Amino acid sequence: MRKPRLMTPGPAMVPEDVLLELARPVIHHRSDEAKQVIVEVAEGLKEVFQTKNDVMILTSSGTGAMEAAVVNVVPPGGKAIVLNAGHFAARWAAICKAFGIVAVTVDTEWGQPVDPARVAEALERHPDAVAVYGTLSETSTGTGHPVKEIGEVVAKTDAVFVVDGISGVGAMECRQDEWKIDVLCAGSQKALMLPPGLAFVSVGPKAWAKIDAFESHSYYFSLKAARSKAKEFDTPYTPAHTLILALRAALRRIKDEGVESIWKRHALMSEACQAGVKALGLELFSARPAEGLTAFLVPEGMKDSQIRGKMAERFGVTTVGGQGKIKGKIVRIGHMGYTDELDVISALAALEMALSDLGLDVEPGKAVTAAQQVFLGKGEPVTA
Amino acid sequence: MRKPRLMTPGPAMVPEDVLLELARPVIHHRSDEAKQVIVEVAEGLKEVFQTKNDVMILTSSGTGAMEAAVVNVVPPGGKAIVLNAGHFAARWAAICKAFGIVAVTVDTEWGQPVDPARVAEALERHPDAVAVYGTLSETSTGTGHPVKEIGEVVAKTDAVFVVDGISGVGAMECRQDEWKIDVLCAGSQKALMLPPGLAFVSVGPKAWAKIDAFESHSYYFSLKAARSKAKEFDTPYTPAHTLILALRAALRRIKDEGVESIWKRHALMSEACQAGVKALGLELFSARPAEGLTAFLVPEGMKDSQIRGKMAERFGVTTVGGQGKIKGKIVRIGHMGYTDELDVISALAALEMALSDLGLDVEPGKAVTAAQQVFLGKGEPVTA
Repeated sequence: MRKPRLMTPGPAMVPEDVLLELARPVIHHRSDEAKQVIVEVAEGLKEVFQTKNDVMILTSSGTGAMEAAVVNVVPPGGKAIVLNAGHFAARWAAICKAFGIVAVTVDTEWGQPVDPARVAEALERHPDAVAVYGTLSETSTGTGHPVKEIGEVVAKTDAVFVVDGISGVGAMECRQDEWKIDVLCAGSQKALMLPPGLAFVSVGPKAWAKIDAFESHSYYFSLKAARSKAKEFDTPYTPAHTLILALRAALRRIKDEGVESIWKRHALMSEACQAGVKALGLELFSARPAEGLTAFLVPEGMKDSQIRGKMAERFGVTTVGGQGKIKGKIVRIGHMGYTDELDVISALAALEMALSDLGLDVEPGKAVTAAQQVFLGKGEPVTA
Repeated sequence: MRKPRLMTPGPAMVPEDVLLELARPVIHHRSDEAKQVIVEVAEGLKEVFQTKNDVMILTSSGTGAMEAAVVNVVPPGGKAIVLNAGHFAARWAAICKAFGIVAVTVDTEWGQPVDPARVAEALERHPDAVAVYGTLSETSTGTGHPVKEIGEVVAKTDAVFVVDGISGVGAMECRQDEWKIDVLCAGSQKALMLPPGLAFVSVGPKAWAKIDAFESHSYYFSLKAARSKAKEFDTPYTPAHTLILALRAALRRIKDEGVESIWKRHALMSEACQAGVKALGLELFSARPAEGLTAFLVPEGMKDSQIRGKMAERFGVTTVGGQGKIKGKIVRIGHMGYTDELDVISALAALEMALSDLGLDVEPGKAVTAAQQVFLGKGEPVTA
């Protein structure tokens, strides 16, 4: 028997009670009952996003939210600055290109955090940029970017700051309003503890002014349409309502634990996973690890598929490798959402045994012990 | 106790075993296991669409599939003919407008079927039209349009025929390839017996030539991207994989019953529901009823909300009213997908009792009997 442990940076594991919500009979999405669900969900999402804005619900994957945050904000032929530091950051540029928007990229080595000073320089060189597109947690490299500091920089200009928070929101500290994030995107299948299928966009007043200034070529992803329906706790088109019902259950869990406590839990899991990986002599890929996943370099002479295959086949632990230009070079362990300390320890134990099985000179228990020390030292005290 | 009976023309009821699939733990959408699901689903969708084309899966509601069928097919500034005969047909024109496409409408009175001769005229007057946008089953009016005959007309020209089959595919006869439908769209929450959240688009060679002729302003809904991934049984972005897993279960049911048998079941339920409604002295709204729903006019002096409210509150039968310009004027009873003869009889019995309760001079049992006669006369013989 292998018990499945989905330790990927999205989709992530879904709590059993949330899964059961999905099995409930479908109700009509325009019924009062459905509206009441959205009323509750709308409040919960604001708390997760740390915003006073309405958080609009889209039926799509996270990329749909990104598209909405591009086509509605920058007119065709307009200019955008893209903080290009990974596979998903590059998607901002690809979306801009598809819609005839000029994307100026601030290129940063994958695994390195974006330098806010370079964002300031780019804004000075391109005062006509309508928006700066950045990333909270770059899933492809496991890097957390200094969004707060970049927000300060962008706020001094006319440009709006748009952040892909897909694998970050709910996993690591992010305060949309305080941090001056004008548009924040998230997806359901990460720290929000749902299956994929919903995306979220929250838009602040500075960004609404840009959006209201032109008629964008958008229909399904029209944020103006979404805004007017969100005011009535509704959506312009039929939403994936069973997922919204499950979202309510997930948000109740988040409310019970508290957003700040959840950030702390993730910070601790991240620190423990990093400590475990380093205790095995492995090298972290990111210079500034995001808190929902840990990426490490594949040891010399090994293939990522060997390590990941062994972890999956023998222990049921699913991880992912690299994407784009770092395909084959890293392994990424996700620890976001419905993941606890013992899940991290399990993943590290599986990693140790997999590496040992593959003939690497590792001392089983070292990673686990290192993680335990983090949990013991900084977690809740185990003795009174 | 009121047992919920969702008799709306989408979302429709979902079989219990399909619902349970949704409660299964999430797997990674790029795993071999996930790919095998798509391999099976791809085959089943072709059968439902009656096509040799790949049927592409989008994570969106049906409107997303419609948007994909517009932005990828007609270049900005290009011309399209829209067969405008209801609320959802009008959506084709609205999407065209949003993307700078000139929509020439062939306006037909709501409830009337589109006349193929008028489509021929429009194509003659507008030989530069790239596409004709039509509807198989207009959900807002309960009308089935003569798609086969329109397909013959469009096939004689350079234009491609794009059909919104969202509430029709799987409920009424529709043979994409034989009927010369170049692009066919469907949604998950209708006759495919799933909750909302997935949409489907199948594109034939004549339409691919239009699509390949220009670079469309699309990213999330790029059909070129979807095509290349569909070849590998994959999707360009994270799909709503739990819904795809449930789709497999729904398609297995469809395969077991057989697509042609399913069409017959729907035709019979439609005939029975019409007979029942007429037996109560009510007037059908549509001159050519679609087979997944029955729309009737609200009797003089009554409100649709009274009838629908009574059916819902007392008997748990959910129906919908009119949309757009016929809001308040009709009641629509859905009977598509996971709906059988006794569901139709239940809805009619509830309708009879609701009308009687509301003081209308109806003879309870008349509608039920009329429906039974249809089922007895044309269904499977009840005695050997």
